[in-house]
Amino acid sequence: MFFKKPVFILVRPQMGENIGTAARAMANFGQTKLRIVAPRDGWPNRAAEDTSTGAFDEMEPIKIFNTIQEAAADLHYLYAVTARPRGMAKDSFTPQEAVKNINATTGFVFGPERTGLENDEAALCHSILTIPSNPAFPVLNLAQSVSLIAWEIFKISDQTPGRTENRETAPQEIFDAMFTRLQTELEVSNYFKGEHLKPTMLRNIRTMFLRGQWNEQEIRTFQGIISAFLTRK
Amino acid sequence: MFFKKPVFILVRPQMGENIGTAARAMANFGQTKLRIVAPRDGWPNRAAEDTSTGAFDEMEPIKIFNTIQEAAADLHYLYAVTARPRGMAKDSFTPQEAVKNINATTGFVFGPERTGLENDEAALCHSILTIPSNPAFPVLNLAQSVSLIAWEIFKISDQTPGRTENRETAPQEIFDAMFTRLQTELEVSNYFKGEHLKPTMLRNIRTMFLRGQWNEQEIRTFQGIISAFLTRK
Repeated sequence: MFFKKPVFILVRPQMGENIGTAARAMANFGQTKLRIVAPRDGWPNRAAEDTSTGAFDEMEPIKIFNTIQEAAADLHYLYAVTARPRGMAKDSFTPQEAVKNINATTGFVFGPERTGLENDEAALCHSILTIPSNPAFPVLNLAQSVSLIAWEIFKISDQTPGRTENRETAPQEIFDAMFTRLQTELEVSNYFKGEHLKPTMLRNIRTMFLRGQWNEQEIRTFQGIISAFLTRK
Repeated sequence: MFFKKPVFILVRPQMGENIGTAARAMANFGQTKLRIVAPRDGWPNRAAEDTSTGAFDEMEPIKIFNTIQEAAADLHYLYAVTARPRGMAKDSFTPQEAVKNINATTGFVFGPERTGLENDEAALCHSILTIPSNPAFPVLNLAQSVSLIAWEIFKISDQTPGRTENRETAPQEIFDAMFTRLQTELEVSNYFKGEHLKPTMLRNIRTMFLRGQWNEQEIRTFQGIISAFLTRK
């Protein structure tokens, strides 16, 4: 699959665990470009490596910078990812809308865990990206924010069908042979109380079994169940 | 906002941190129903509380069970959330497709961090939910999986416009007054080299300034900039 690969920029991240988990989520969804501005605990970071579960090997080498300006020097359009509305005359986008117009020169800029981006840092960006959330509990974990944006990018290219039927329903004649046998054996067993109810009852039974969309193996299994009951001593 | 509120079931989760982060993501997206089957480190769990950052207060009380059957006794439809394709004749869904048909009696069943759901556990569920991911690095963190499903549910009800313009572009007459002054001052400054180029140059300059969609304050700011240049001693 070909993914759009924008740049993810983590600004002054505090916990190595969050860097590692963010990288893991990026790699899960085919993203490879991670830049970090002034990580609190320096770089490399053991906690980040541990929680990444090997994601760094799937990505381009992580680049470390001192300032956002340096980290974004070659980028053409920056989104400040922040939950807080700011008194700033910038457009704000949802993730699913923002990812429609990205390319390799787009940057997503994430602030530190506790405080988020400062106003001066958000002002460096062209637009705001706000992940909508529960107003009563709005602040997302850093890695979750990275993950959701990577996921929205992934979905643009992903061709997985919404529903996959992991089986092949049996041909109708196989089903009908089973159903005819079932009906015959039920008649022999005096299951149908009267002829006038029988058509409705048969229709309901057929519906109920059809709904299972059994494959040939499953129909054979049910034939075996009938036989087991009928031959019980 | 009214959200569909299915039940999230974590089966034998190992790390309290993952339970807490999962709960935080649920609360971020308005989800309130968390059940846990046989948490490795018992319950309550200090690491879970710490990483939840208060999410438990936004949710219904977390319920603890010994088995999946007990945890799902009142539910009508279960999705086994698993990354691995199984040789099981069950339909599999993407998150965005699965969340279309959920209600309060739907359960999402998540396996332990390292091993995922066992085949017998997945067999208890009606369908499979697989989060599509990078084939080279497919295994998602538990909390990320919970988060993505909660996010997809949230989006169904969320009314946030994809793009919000956080400013009011000035009325055209305000812009035109500014532009007329700009043109006059440029003429006085002999900016236009010849009359034949002037119409094109003016059109390009108008386009370039219009694109900024300035509001009245921003236009006043630019008027101030012009004045500052013209009055420089």
